[in-house]
Amino acid sequence: MDRNIYLSNMNIEDALDLFMGKANFKKEKEIISVITSLGRVTTEPVFAKYSSPNYNAAAMDGIAVKALDTFDATEVNPIILEKDTHFVYIDTGDPIIEPYDAVIMIEDVTEAGTGELKIITSAFPWQHIRPIGEDIVAHEMIIPSNHNIRPVDIGALLSGGIKDINVYKNPRVGIIPTGTEIVEPGTRLEQGDIYESNSRMIENLVIEYGGEPKRYNPVPDNYELLKKSIQKAVDDNDIVIVNAGSSAGSEDYTKALVEDMGELLVHGIAAKPGKPAVLGIIDGKPILGVPGYPVSAYIVFETFAKPLIISGSGNRPKKDTYVNAVLSRRMISSIQNREYIRIKLGKVKENLIATPLSRGAGVTMSLVRADGVFEIPQNIEGYEAGEIIKVRLLKDLEDIENTIVSIGSHDLIMDIIANMMHKKKSEYNLSSSHVGSMGGIMALKRGEAHMAPIHLLDEETGEYNISYIKKYLSNKEMALIKGVKRVQGMMIKKGNPENITDIKDLVRDDIVFVNRQKGAGTRILTDYLLKNQGIDAENIQGYEREMTTHMAVAAAVASGSADIGIGVYSAAKAMDLDFIPIGDEDYDFAIPIEFLHDNMIQLFLEVIKSEDFKNELEKMGGYSADNTGDIITI
Amino acid sequence: MDRNIYLSNMNIEDALDLFMGKANFKKEKEIISVITSLGRVTTEPVFAKYSSPNYNAAAMDGIAVKALDTFDATEVNPIILEKDTHFVYIDTGDPIIEPYDAVIMIEDVTEAGTGELKIITSAFPWQHIRPIGEDIVAHEMIIPSNHNIRPVDIGALLSGGIKDINVYKNPRVGIIPTGTEIVEPGTRLEQGDIYESNSRMIENLVIEYGGEPKRYNPVPDNYELLKKSIQKAVDDNDIVIVNAGSSAGSEDYTKALVEDMGELLVHGIAAKPGKPAVLGIIDGKPILGVPGYPVSAYIVFETFAKPLIISGSGNRPKKDTYVNAVLSRRMISSIQNREYIRIKLGKVKENLIATPLSRGAGVTMSLVRADGVFEIPQNIEGYEAGEIIKVRLLKDLEDIENTIVSIGSHDLIMDIIANMMHKKKSEYNLSSSHVGSMGGIMALKRGEAHMAPIHLLDEETGEYNISYIKKYLSNKEMALIKGVKRVQGMMIKKGNPENITDIKDLVRDDIVFVNRQKGAGTRILTDYLLKNQGIDAENIQGYEREMTTHMAVAAAVASGSADIGIGVYSAAKAMDLDFIPIGDEDYDFAIPIEFLHDNMIQLFLEVIKSEDFKNELEKMGGYSADNTGDIITI
Repeated sequence: MDRNIYLSNMNIEDALDLFMGKANFKKEKEIISVITSLGRVTTEPVFAKYSSPNYNAAAMDGIAVKALDTFDATEVNPIILEKDTHFVYIDTGDPIIEPYDAVIMIEDVTEAGTGELKIITSAFPWQHIRPIGEDIVAHEMIIPSNHNIRPVDIGALLSGGIKDINVYKNPRVGIIPTGTEIVEPGTRLEQGDIYESNSRMIENLVIEYGGEPKRYNPVPDNYELLKKSIQKAVDDNDIVIVNAGSSAGSEDYTKALVEDMGELLVHGIAAKPGKPAVLGIIDGKPILGVPGYPVSAYIVFETFAKPLIISGSGNRPKKDTYVNAVLSRRMISSIQNREYIRIKLGKVKENLIATPLSRGAGVTMSLVRADGVFEIPQNIEGYEAGEIIKVRLLKDLEDIENTIVSIGSHDLIMDIIANMMHKKKSEYNLSSSHVGSMGGIMALKRGEAHMAPIHLLDEETGEYNISYIKKYLSNKEMALIKGVKRVQGMMIKKGNPENITDIKDLVRDDIVFVNRQKGAGTRILTDYLLKNQGIDAENIQGYEREMTTHMAVAAAVASGSADIGIGVYSAAKAMDLDFIPIGDEDYDFAIPIEFLHDNMIQLFLEVIKSEDFKNELEKMGGYSADNTGDIITI
Repeated sequence: MDRNIYLSNMNIEDALDLFMGKANFKKEKEIISVITSLGRVTTEPVFAKYSSPNYNAAAMDGIAVKALDTFDATEVNPIILEKDTHFVYIDTGDPIIEPYDAVIMIEDVTEAGTGELKIITSAFPWQHIRPIGEDIVAHEMIIPSNHNIRPVDIGALLSGGIKDINVYKNPRVGIIPTGTEIVEPGTRLEQGDIYESNSRMIENLVIEYGGEPKRYNPVPDNYELLKKSIQKAVDDNDIVIVNAGSSAGSEDYTKALVEDMGELLVHGIAAKPGKPAVLGIIDGKPILGVPGYPVSAYIVFETFAKPLIISGSGNRPKKDTYVNAVLSRRMISSIQNREYIRIKLGKVKENLIATPLSRGAGVTMSLVRADGVFEIPQNIEGYEAGEIIKVRLLKDLEDIENTIVSIGSHDLIMDIIANMMHKKKSEYNLSSSHVGSMGGIMALKRGEAHMAPIHLLDEETGEYNISYIKKYLSNKEMALIKGVKRVQGMMIKKGNPENITDIKDLVRDDIVFVNRQKGAGTRILTDYLLKNQGIDAENIQGYEREMTTHMAVAAAVASGSADIGIGVYSAAKAMDLDFIPIGDEDYDFAIPIEFLHDNMIQLFLEVIKSEDFKNELEKMGGYSADNTGDIITI
């Protein structure tokens, strides 16, 4: 087994300089039709071929006259003009024919008999006439070089007699998906298959940056097949991207192929995610080996392919927008590399709060959900909660500001509410972070959220939520928006093959449990049940394995990596599991009173009180909504 | 002759409300492939079909082990693992097969013999394993409704098993160019022809706003032909735009056709440019009659078609950006309508200066050159110079700030320099306004320009420029950047058919002159020559007709509307005219010393001193550049 386990750890700037220098990327030019030139960039200035108008033209509907004939006209001394002798009718845009040299608007003449008109004001020479070249004079520059062509430019170019135009060619980017495990979307997934999605993301990024993508058929992990495919892509394109196979595994061939076919520049960069990138040159053309994890693929593409494509198309990169935000959690980072942290932003009162999303290289959803990216430089060990960090925006700041920041317990209804709100008023959003009920309470305490969905059982009173708010948020004027009652229970495999009937079964030798994270309402409930039954958590296999959502627990059971988990009915139903109810609980929303009258919160209340929402709950099952939307002041 | 000369003057908001209300535009939906969904907008939330990964997968290249087998491994007590008994090799993404439950990275194992590996640290259960659903859990929402699809969304959707997606249909927009005078670009222009360009501008605006344009062949001004074409366009599209024929001329049929075929809502809006708009409904579909002048067409499209297209495609309109700027000239406006003033912006020291461009509805170049638009509300009579106005940006503010504001005399070399600068460093621009040499001096005095190109003859000393700077800009520390020597002369028709030989010929009865505007250096030269010869301007036909550029004067002579004008050789050459030299003059750049070390000005100096620039001058003829770029402190 030939394993090349060592990657270099080249500084990103050095890698980029080396790559851009060696790539020596030539901008190619082409001549295209003006009418299809939207968004393209001129290679040289464009000078008008003809004037526009290219004749002296009537600027108004009316009559063409000789100004001299009209000089004496006044209200007391009207002048009568005879058709064809003194005037001709003329429409806007018609040429002014000798001997006429002025236009009188149709509104300013009155009929005076057959073929005769009366005027009461004189016309001055060249009145209401667009002189030749009024808009564009022949040989004048219409647009300069390096100009991004807009619709109005197209209009002006055509008016100036320009039919074809010199522009930079959009760089052609060949994209080769590789991997024996990948299958095309639409295929039925077998164990070990994953859908090929990176090449489609890359394809569309190429389009966004002004390149012309050409995606090749996926190639299995086979040296010779891959070599053939790369050679074809190099022949047909200006840049080639090979997706996956860029690391040092036994089936990672990109590095060896680049060495074989051309010049390897870099293997391994100091980026996280994104470390196992390959940069090289084959037949004078830049080639990128991009890692298989989607976030790594995205970061390597953005860092090394984007600048090539943008400069090749003649465009200038759009300037990034940065905002300052307060970091909500401590972040530790390796000094070995630059880390790209996907950030969820929320504006709570005057503060923009930055909450790191999942840092996993495989978590595409962290990109989908991100409002921005924060780059932790190499050689920095991390940041403390409360520090001000500089976040590069991926979304409009205004959209971020119009978002309810909900931090707390997870329930599927949060997605439903978010969607119903966004559909009702598309300028408002609801963003949910799932850190458990206690995490939500703490976020409210620190002023980082508008609301916290919670389901916290007071073991002494059996009451939900209120005592926790009183205890932990006593310094704030708080309210509780009543949410839903939901059924919690044991999620077990379909048909209950292990014959689980009771919480006591958790200690069985043949049973593997999957838990929720500390501070989750469901975890508190679990621990409460265990305590009531006198069960020692030490004796439960899998008690330490923590998931952060109901769905993740259900998925673990569905996949067979666990036999039982505790969660809500809707999650069990979604994953087609059996469900043994434990009891009802109150899933409510803790909220500082000061936010209650905010328009976004009013929309939230409108949605949860709506019939549509109740119908959705009905469909999911396991919920009741008797006093949903009621507000209890605490 | 049937002329319908009266247009209504409906307030723009009322017209828009009426039109949008009656249009009752339905958003249509369609199902498309995810891979082609970039930029489209979802009609409903999209939930994952499968988890991603949908199996427990290795997160690293290495070996899969049972964690239990490794618990005792330490540096002093390494453990030997046997292939296939204790481990299997595994690559990132491979499924974890029972009974294995952890992965050890390849970097952390060493060969220990045939089929044997040594480890010195223990693995914990689920180490380096991506659990099922780590990225996406089946049934979880990937993106909400009303979401504009990005490349990362496409990746996530495919990963979640989504192949097709419900999106809003791009509204189909039929565009009918009309007019007997229009010809297709590429055709040879005859007298009275104009190139059809508006439909192409509109077509590309439709694309920019997310619609799907369909342009029909141009239709001559013929009621029946137009009716047929409109009916076809209404049948095939969601919105129909008829370009030109919307006014009240004898060949303007749009209004009558809308009345005939459907319901006329509005004819005439209180907008300038843009008044003669037609708004109506045919077969339940919105139809717009758009005026023929390009700027009018643009404004009517932006006001009435853009909102329909954007809302139809499910998008939200982009928010406009406004800046405050100091108005550089007085502007009078009619209280009858809202006027859309195209604005050139320039940042001179701390001030953003707004200079109105040509207000003509036919001046496409005012849109091409505009940095922004200022709307003078109805019922406002105008603004004084120095007032602060709010300008809607059409360009990035940063580009505007990186622009040298040059105000003064016109010469073709300004286009050449602008282009060479932009080509050298595409972030810098040179914007020239042509108000004549004295206008430039006054702009410098008011702090509205960085430099003023001037060629002002001191009648007493015969010297150029310096005495004017001393006289009018005595309170500023000024310099003069030497520009070019250029030949001024009489521009006359090719072959000199009127046998013009001398400036005295201007007073001949058969000769029509075309003049430059007051304050232009060429005007001062003209008046100086006339005075020297004792010629009374009263006796010169056409002396009152003023053009603002050399090219416009040359164009007037070329078109035959004048016999003679005074200007530079390059303009005569460009328009293929004969040229009788009068003498050399100095075309230089007056500049406050404080701007000299600005990067933009340094680039300007670099360009005018370059060999490339001298070659361009050579090509044009009539220039010499002996001390170009020298700086004289005044």
